[in-house]
Amino acid sequence: MYKLVLIRHGESEWNKANLFTGWMDVDLSDKGIQEALHAGRLLKEEQFVFDVAYTSYLKRAIKTLDYVLEEMDLLWIPVYKTWQLNERHYGALQGLSKTATAEKYGEEQVKLWRRSYDVLPPALTKDDDRYPKNDVKYRNIDDELIPLTESLKETVIRVRDYWDKEIAPQIKAGKNVIIAAHGNSLRALIKFLDKLSSEEIIDVNVPTGTPLVYTLDDQLHPVRKHYLGSEQHIESKIQEVAEPDKIME
Amino acid sequence: MYKLVLIRHGESEWNKANLFTGWMDVDLSDKGIQEALHAGRLLKEEQFVFDVAYTSYLKRAIKTLDYVLEEMDLLWIPVYKTWQLNERHYGALQGLSKTATAEKYGEEQVKLWRRSYDVLPPALTKDDDRYPKNDVKYRNIDDELIPLTESLKETVIRVRDYWDKEIAPQIKAGKNVIIAAHGNSLRALIKFLDKLSSEEIIDVNVPTGTPLVYTLDDQLHPVRKHYLGSEQHIESKIQEVAEPDKIME
Repeated sequence: MYKLVLIRHGESEWNKANLFTGWMDVDLSDKGIQEALHAGRLLKEEQFVFDVAYTSYLKRAIKTLDYVLEEMDLLWIPVYKTWQLNERHYGALQGLSKTATAEKYGEEQVKLWRRSYDVLPPALTKDDDRYPKNDVKYRNIDDELIPLTESLKETVIRVRDYWDKEIAPQIKAGKNVIIAAHGNSLRALIKFLDKLSSEEIIDVNVPTGTPLVYTLDDQLHPVRKHYLGSEQHIESKIQEVAEPDKIME
Repeated sequence: MYKLVLIRHGESEWNKANLFTGWMDVDLSDKGIQEALHAGRLLKEEQFVFDVAYTSYLKRAIKTLDYVLEEMDLLWIPVYKTWQLNERHYGALQGLSKTATAEKYGEEQVKLWRRSYDVLPPALTKDDDRYPKNDVKYRNIDDELIPLTESLKETVIRVRDYWDKEIAPQIKAGKNVIIAAHGNSLRALIKFLDKLSSEEIIDVNVPTGTPLVYTLDDQLHPVRKHYLGSEQHIESKIQEVAEPDKIME
């Protein structure tokens, strides 16, 4: 049996302002920092010890992981960062508010982009400042791998690729793994771990800063799945992210 | 021509209390955090960009690096952590104060341990809580590699080994490298980079939180070496670490 822990980053400055974030590299809010520290203390209390950690290229996930590892006195373990665990790329919606987007495209269309499995938001153009190749982080990554927009479907493909190549072999080698990532890159993982259909994943929301513990068998099939923390705390975190007018992605 | 930047961690809680630290994993003081942030801002102002970073297994170096990278907006780059960049192991002196050590062993002996190249401080025994193998960090490292005490000579051997195997090839591949480490692991690096004798290295002190920039030729021979910052600031930092009654190692 293997243990795997997933954690969604705490609140960011743009979550607070209700803007579409995607690959925009915004910082944690004070509340986000507190959520990360709380998660680290929970994991320490439950005597988790990790051998290796994975996170995205985005500072809200990297810093969430760092706060967790610092609370657990595990800052020294290897941390692998990859663009493949980044949040879903939200195309030309990135940086727009919920209100502005609804005014421009209509409520129904926005809901479709957020809640469908394979409907793509409007794409960025390559001359846009927000095009990832204009950021030094993505300079050495093949052009054809870098998205201009994504639905959850595309996110699943790149997350799965990284899981198969990098993470799954480490777990099978007996390493205790923690992954600190984003609402949609974690939903991508959950979709294929739990073998959910494109319909079933739609209603899955991952609460922020709440460690999700998977117990996996030899084939990495889940035999148990639970959130750490008090029932009441978990319930309130789930309510927060299910709020339809709140954009946290 | 290659650039390499070395940075010694900022003040730790035990530097402040004037205790021998070595491999004891103590945190930065508030002053230490400010030193790290200042270094990050200097590097950003001078438009340094790093491709890869190296640090030790000790949180005062790891956190110094994290503060630097955060200020530079480079938290996403790969960071490799290794015990081989740890501070010199100070054997049974670790955790003792300057005063206690001088009372127990005499001023002259303490000076010899601190300032000679190859005189070993009293060794730890393996049943000592401070023996590294009693710490989860070092659990998977071969027993014979783990020191019970070190002079600068032993520190040079392990730092050089890691430099040759891991760091030098990255620099030769064109990567811009930053190393965040400790007074003596950096003196070890400086000894072989600058080809200093065992006598010459004795008088070299590395100021805390002050980026040291090496310009290296194709063979990684230094052609230039300078600290970043104002003359006055650098001078005051050098004075601080040269203070004979101050223990910062």
